[in-house]
Amino acid sequence: MEIDYSHIKVIGFDADDTLWVNETYFRDAEVAFGKLLSKYETLNKIDQELFKMEIKNLPLYGYGVKGFVLSMIEMALELSNNKVSNQVINDILAIGKDMINKPVELLEGVEEVLKKLSQNYRLILATKGDLLDQERKLEKSGLLDYFHHIEVLSDKKEENYSKLLNHLDIKPSEFLMVGNSLKSDVLPLINIKAHAIHVPFHTTWLHEEVHEDETNGVEYKTVGSLLDILPLLN
Amino acid sequence: MEIDYSHIKVIGFDADDTLWVNETYFRDAEVAFGKLLSKYETLNKIDQELFKMEIKNLPLYGYGVKGFVLSMIEMALELSNNKVSNQVINDILAIGKDMINKPVELLEGVEEVLKKLSQNYRLILATKGDLLDQERKLEKSGLLDYFHHIEVLSDKKEENYSKLLNHLDIKPSEFLMVGNSLKSDVLPLINIKAHAIHVPFHTTWLHEEVHEDETNGVEYKTVGSLLDILPLLN
Repeated sequence: MEIDYSHIKVIGFDADDTLWVNETYFRDAEVAFGKLLSKYETLNKIDQELFKMEIKNLPLYGYGVKGFVLSMIEMALELSNNKVSNQVINDILAIGKDMINKPVELLEGVEEVLKKLSQNYRLILATKGDLLDQERKLEKSGLLDYFHHIEVLSDKKEENYSKLLNHLDIKPSEFLMVGNSLKSDVLPLINIKAHAIHVPFHTTWLHEEVHEDETNGVEYKTVGSLLDILPLLN
Repeated sequence: MEIDYSHIKVIGFDADDTLWVNETYFRDAEVAFGKLLSKYETLNKIDQELFKMEIKNLPLYGYGVKGFVLSMIEMALELSNNKVSNQVINDILAIGKDMINKPVELLEGVEEVLKKLSQNYRLILATKGDLLDQERKLEKSGLLDYFHHIEVLSDKKEENYSKLLNHLDIKPSEFLMVGNSLKSDVLPLINIKAHAIHVPFHTTWLHEEVHEDETNGVEYKTVGSLLDILPLLN
């Protein structure tokens, strides 16, 4: 089925793992965390427990590096039965600061796609990360001029996107979201009758994975690279 | 001098300490933190050092509770020469969660003012706090319906407000900011030729204090209570 994109006025781009590498850094941090605590548990158990802790704290801390660091510290105390050394806590803080200071590594075709699309559409960055963090990455990326502004969403569910469209004063049919997460960047948009294109990244956080029955019958496009969206929109 | 507010279309309200109590909870947390570390230093020294740590980490962590908690943990390790107990780290994490879960305590006249002004102006919440935190407070406050949307700014400097006005598609003369911080809610607005009304709160974070020479010759109104802005705008 051909999808009609002719009414699109605003295109929202997810940031992390759509424009630049991100999840990879979280995975690296998890490996480093596992090593720091390896005398208390197996790496596999540490991974599982850290994930549970992150999900437990998500309603309180939301997304982003700072909440992740706080969850790692809480996990270190718990896993070690309050025996972990201060040096490990210091090391966890350093992992977090290192993540925040990582250089921005653009994904394939990003600059070309944004340059072309910004001539005909209003582009916004729509992210559930931390605003300061995303502003910093956008600045480092050199992509700042292509975007009208950054929209930070506390979550990427249907109601968050409905609020966003209301705030942008546009109809759902006039909005296209482009991102790597089926759960956050694609399905909620289709459910509110807006458009979405899925550009998978090789690594997906477990929390962002969806079951097959959630996507049954939903109409969205998946492309292999961001460059593949250009022919659809010109 | 009478200031002419007749062109105002959008009113931005600061959230913390303008609509509801916030700084008081940070002060309470600092006192609790001081007690936890009292065997290592005097309360006065702990206060000073924590402030320095927060300012040092501000470019990395930005504003909000999560960065504050990370700074408290780093300070506890440093002040104790890496001798602090795991229990104290646990207690610091608990202070942070407790801050995030605090009930919302509205300041005088807030509901009445928003109700009246929302009939004639587009109201937005303009905050540099954490989005999730502010959304939660707005929901708890019962004030959600009065606001068009929340704008999170990574900082509240002239360039952040200029970007905001661009994003709202309005002229500086059409925007009025209302808030408790001279440094964040008033002076940058006046400098970009927008409007601002100052509603002081009894407690101001040291970082938000301004020197007298920064305000010399700047034209803004200060009112004693939020209720006092109604006669100016009707």
